[in-house]
Amino acid sequence: MIYFQCDYAEGCHPKVLEKLIETNLEQSEGYGLDAHCDHARALIRKACGTPDADVHFLVGGTQTNTTVIASVLRPHQGVIAADTGHIACHETGAIEATGHKVLTVPNENGMLSGAQIRTYCQSHYDDAAFEHMPQPGMVYISYPTESGTLYTKAQLEDISAACRDWKLPLFIDGARLGYGLTSPACDLTLPELARLCDVFYIGGTKCGALFGEAVVITNPKLKKDFRYAIKQHGGMLAKGRLLGVQYEALMENGLYFSICRQAVDYALEIHDAFAKKSVPLFGTSQTNQQFVVLTDAQRAQFDGKFAYEVWGPAETGTVVRFCTSWATTRANVDALLAAIAAL
Amino acid sequence: MIYFQCDYAEGCHPKVLEKLIETNLEQSEGYGLDAHCDHARALIRKACGTPDADVHFLVGGTQTNTTVIASVLRPHQGVIAADTGHIACHETGAIEATGHKVLTVPNENGMLSGAQIRTYCQSHYDDAAFEHMPQPGMVYISYPTESGTLYTKAQLEDISAACRDWKLPLFIDGARLGYGLTSPACDLTLPELARLCDVFYIGGTKCGALFGEAVVITNPKLKKDFRYAIKQHGGMLAKGRLLGVQYEALMENGLYFSICRQAVDYALEIHDAFAKKSVPLFGTSQTNQQFVVLTDAQRAQFDGKFAYEVWGPAETGTVVRFCTSWATTRANVDALLAAIAAL
Amino acid sequence: MIYFQCDYAEGCHPKVLEKLIETNLEQSEGYGLDAHCDHARALIRKACGTPDADVHFLVGGTQTNTTVIASVLRPHQGVIAADTGHIACHETGAIEATGHKVLTVPNENGMLSGAQIRTYCQSHYDDAAFEHMPQPGMVYISYPTESGTLYTKAQLEDISAACRDWKLPLFIDGARLGYGLTSPACDLTLPELARLCDVFYIGGTKCGALFGEAVVITNPKLKKDFRYAIKQHGGMLAKGRLLGVQYEALMENGLYFSICRQAVDYALEIHDAFAKKSVPLFGTSQTNQQFVVLTDAQRAQFDGKFAYEVWGPAETGTVVRFCTSWATTRANVDALLAAIAAL
Amino acid sequence: MIYFQCDYAEGCHPKVLEKLIETNLEQSEGYGLDAHCDHARALIRKACGTPDADVHFLVGGTQTNTTVIASVLRPHQGVIAADTGHIACHETGAIEATGHKVLTVPNENGMLSGAQIRTYCQSHYDDAAFEHMPQPGMVYISYPTESGTLYTKAQLEDISAACRDWKLPLFIDGARLGYGLTSPACDLTLPELARLCDVFYIGGTKCGALFGEAVVITNPKLKKDFRYAIKQHGGMLAKGRLLGVQYEALMENGLYFSICRQAVDYALEIHDAFAKKSVPLFGTSQTNQQFVVLTDAQRAQFDGKFAYEVWGPAETGTVVRFCTSWATTRANVDALLAAIAAL
Repeated sequence: MIYFQCDYAEGCHPKVLEKLIETNLEQSEGYGLDAHCDHARALIRKACGTPDADVHFLVGGTQTNTTVIASVLRPHQGVIAADTGHIACHETGAIEATGHKVLTVPNENGMLSGAQIRTYCQSHYDDAAFEHMPQPGMVYISYPTESGTLYTKAQLEDISAACRDWKLPLFIDGARLGYGLTSPACDLTLPELARLCDVFYIGGTKCGALFGEAVVITNPKLKKDFRYAIKQHGGMLAKGRLLGVQYEALMENGLYFSICRQAVDYALEIHDAFAKKSVPLFGTSQTNQQFVVLTDAQRAQFDGKFAYEVWGPAETGTVVRFCTSWATTRANVDALLAAIAAL
Repeated sequence: MIYFQCDYAEGCHPKVLEKLIETNLEQSEGYGLDAHCDHARALIRKACGTPDADVHFLVGGTQTNTTVIASVLRPHQGVIAADTGHIACHETGAIEATGHKVLTVPNENGMLSGAQIRTYCQSHYDDAAFEHMPQPGMVYISYPTESGTLYTKAQLEDISAACRDWKLPLFIDGARLGYGLTSPACDLTLPELARLCDVFYIGGTKCGALFGEAVVITNPKLKKDFRYAIKQHGGMLAKGRLLGVQYEALMENGLYFSICRQAVDYALEIHDAFAKKSVPLFGTSQTNQQFVVLTDAQRAQFDGKFAYEVWGPAETGTVVRFCTSWATTRANVDALLAAIAAL
Repeated sequence: MIYFQCDYAEGCHPKVLEKLIETNLEQSEGYGLDAHCDHARALIRKACGTPDADVHFLVGGTQTNTTVIASVLRPHQGVIAADTGHIACHETGAIEATGHKVLTVPNENGMLSGAQIRTYCQSHYDDAAFEHMPQPGMVYISYPTESGTLYTKAQLEDISAACRDWKLPLFIDGARLGYGLTSPACDLTLPELARLCDVFYIGGTKCGALFGEAVVITNPKLKKDFRYAIKQHGGMLAKGRLLGVQYEALMENGLYFSICRQAVDYALEIHDAFAKKSVPLFGTSQTNQQFVVLTDAQRAQFDGKFAYEVWGPAETGTVVRFCTSWATTRANVDALLAAIAAL
Repeated sequence: MIYFQCDYAEGCHPKVLEKLIETNLEQSEGYGLDAHCDHARALIRKACGTPDADVHFLVGGTQTNTTVIASVLRPHQGVIAADTGHIACHETGAIEATGHKVLTVPNENGMLSGAQIRTYCQSHYDDAAFEHMPQPGMVYISYPTESGTLYTKAQLEDISAACRDWKLPLFIDGARLGYGLTSPACDLTLPELARLCDVFYIGGTKCGALFGEAVVITNPKLKKDFRYAIKQHGGMLAKGRLLGVQYEALMENGLYFSICRQAVDYALEIHDAFAKKSVPLFGTSQTNQQFVVLTDAQRAQFDGKFAYEVWGPAETGTVVRFCTSWATTRANVDALLAAIAAL
């Protein structure tokens, strides 16, 4: 069985593993206060072009989303998100568990727009009973989105401007950031993304690390006491240097980007193969996740040989996801391409 | 200015006030442990045909919804509600503030259906990643709904059956219960409603009391420790007997029902007057709230003379609400009817 | 049976009731946006010497404490309080239910001190693992305390200075404020108290109203969006004007103070009567609650005739509370004095 | 600098690392649903003598404590713990952040007793206002305690009996379980411990793993929906098999126990060395953490050579902690013993 089910099926990139092995018996301070974390922070600040940013390492995505959002919002506030946003769908109500409503707006291709933010806020304050509704307090988007799509630079600038006009911090979930920034469709740089939001993270779990998410806080107002928040949400890893070590490996020599780029390239080959066979694409993903609609007969040709993720029912079959990652091999891609060609 | 804006513009029914005056200097136990509360509980149990129900008195609706829901759900659970449900819209995220997501389904005329509950639950457990989503843990409906509509007995039986099949307690928000049960369109009795759900409340604030909501818990599994929940949510009135006294007045000789029936009758006269003038009705309310779409010119004819509630924009004007209550007078209704006739 | 059990056994002062009766059928805006509330706010601002303060009306003490504290703190912060503080003991964990730890310090006679605040904060930040502990975020005291004692002006100035040095908002629970400010032992004025803290409330429930607590926010930083907080915590009374009307009655002509002063005078007579009989006093209350240690034989002489509150066991008997209120009559006090004299 | 500061300064035991390397590029299901996790679960059930227990893997201690406690308690309940308990002291109020008060009782040598539990519960329900206080809902103890001490089997049986009498689930924090069960002072087996409580965990982070805590739920009533709770609290590791793999390594051939035993032996050598020099011991730890009171002069002899943890001030100097772990080497212990001998 060859896995294209998700981008977290394997362990970590060999260079990350090597560095973990190499440092395994070093002794260091706990809780992210060690030299490896400091070095990784410096590398990240440099890559982001944000010399003054605070950088924190957490373990996983739900934890990171919850910690950031709960740290930013006041109790009567909610977070605006697309209805397909991870926090709206797939975190077992973790945001609500911290007391905050996710204020959803309908997605278009996995994305929301600056206009939707403006309309939401305007409507909120236009309502005579506005204090009877949660106040919009920040905006959450994913880059790339859960649907694999990418905001253009112009779209992100529009969202950013809407947020700043309404004084809403903008938080970008970068669980798959590497797969977004290295897509040929991406017209943004990491420093540009950093400049357009207030806090974001560089996902490690899905992009070469065993686990780990690097939160970058660029807005000085959001920095205060963030380590308390991490600890309270169970995200302060005792052996925090494990995160530093992994990010050192990923950020040195652009490893993070080169391994993600390859995964995207493979994904686009898969995309093209499906398109060539006129298998209907679901959405317009330009990153490492590709969604297609398969008939039962087509699924039967994959089953037992290739693992993919069932996304949901479609009128003409089933939406499924094929996912590449830093660990996907040329051989496995070729096997899949052959199977697609044989549909 | 004559108010038709809401059903909480005045104080309380004269008979309620009389009883408050009469008992004002009595000395009693605090926190709902007094003889008036006990007597009111007995009257309520009798009216509901639920000799074993627990009855608790709280002050307001948001408080009551929050206390009941937070008491019933486990942390990973959410409450299914129509997207027009009060808890989904107008409680400043109070449910989320206790950690729970409101799981909305699209309303039809302010209502949800048994089929929607079944589909929601089936889909939840059919999803391979179901543990990544909040578990449906109870169902919330309003009777009458926020749109003034009424579930038929058959509809409520269907909802109730769906809830029991999926082991979801059914909670009925009865903030305006009196205006529902006394509508000519109602084919339910109070004991039938009590039998079909697990917990509900008999709204006092909008139905003749200064304030107060009487929670009736019929499902024995939901009874345990509810007084702790009331206290924790700030709902345990020190002078709890004020609630008992008011419900004594309301439940004796059917006062609660007779004053609500009159309000509904007045509302239906208003409804008919608008219909007669072909003013478009918004929804199909059969209770004390009537929603119509007015043009700006029509609004101008009311403004300065009649207060109504602006509900939102409509294509051809503005949706507004005219609301009667136990306090609405014949004279004020006649004045409004004349104004409508003059449109 | 004559009640000295608590200060919430009766309804409200006749002048408050009169005003409720008089305004009962007036029509007004809901949710505290009416003219009575505005007038009451003006009267309170004037009495406090705080022309710029925000004034909000809530229903009860636990609700008020929870709403204020949850509005002020960030999620990783706790509130410093004496271990006898109401929020630490008798609110069913309502503060914790909003996510915050009550950081208790040992009380002395129901009070904490500026030195304790300074030590707590110093120790917190001196600890290398300070981020592993809740951060002190505000201070809560009660005036008078739950033990009936009063901070002197000097003590309160010391607490206030400690709070300002450590940038901690100071919140004063004034559930029984009237009984504190009118004690002969009080060397503070209401404007002085207002000046020394950031937010406090003028308790109504125990001081002449049916219910109600008037929150006065003097620190501009704490004002923003407080009405959202009230609504979310279920404290926004639909018929909000009921609170305004009651505070109008209480604040006009100093009624609040005159009725509280009388209650304190009665309490001190009771205090002196016990002292004269050498019944051991428990604590040094100078307000309307008096605590004494009774033997079983002494209790037997009261039982069936006078209701008092059992406070807890003592080495030589039982600590009990005798409580006067605005409703206590001369005749009832005389009866109690006679019974004490007969011990 | 030689570290005796904590038991999480290094990475993981070489055998654990080896297995991580070996399985690094395997493809598996995420979220703990893989074969390695299943195998590790089987090994753990066997070691605990609990064939029917549910076993879940989480990442860290605070996360685990929070997830278990929030899953067990109803909203109005608190958790009884010693005032030195980790949840009471060093988790940034994580338990309170889920809405629950930690109900502390004074520790004796880091421990609480069955008698304290009984007294707490009896007092709670004896109080007339018991519903105004959080209800005791479960009991939390640590084995070994945060002070390094160990409950005897008799003490644990007494606690367990008290819990069962009051229907309180007993939760044992086993962050350092290995160091407890392998102490010469331990008179308990792992199956006995499992039998005496309702849920506990076998700590990995401090006992040979990179990270990881294995929760064992023996009480069937506590099993339902625990995976939702893990996900909601951000504890469901995407690459869950990393936890399974590590526990496979630790549980095979008793590695977990043999490496912990060695650490305890070293710690007791350190203990004896201090005792021999009459350096005052702080507490009576029988496990891998040793607490002593050092004078400033004595500290000066260690500083720059040995890292230890400052625990707090003592009358005659400073309480400090020396901590061994699975990674402590004979050579480092010998160096420390020599330094102690030279005091």
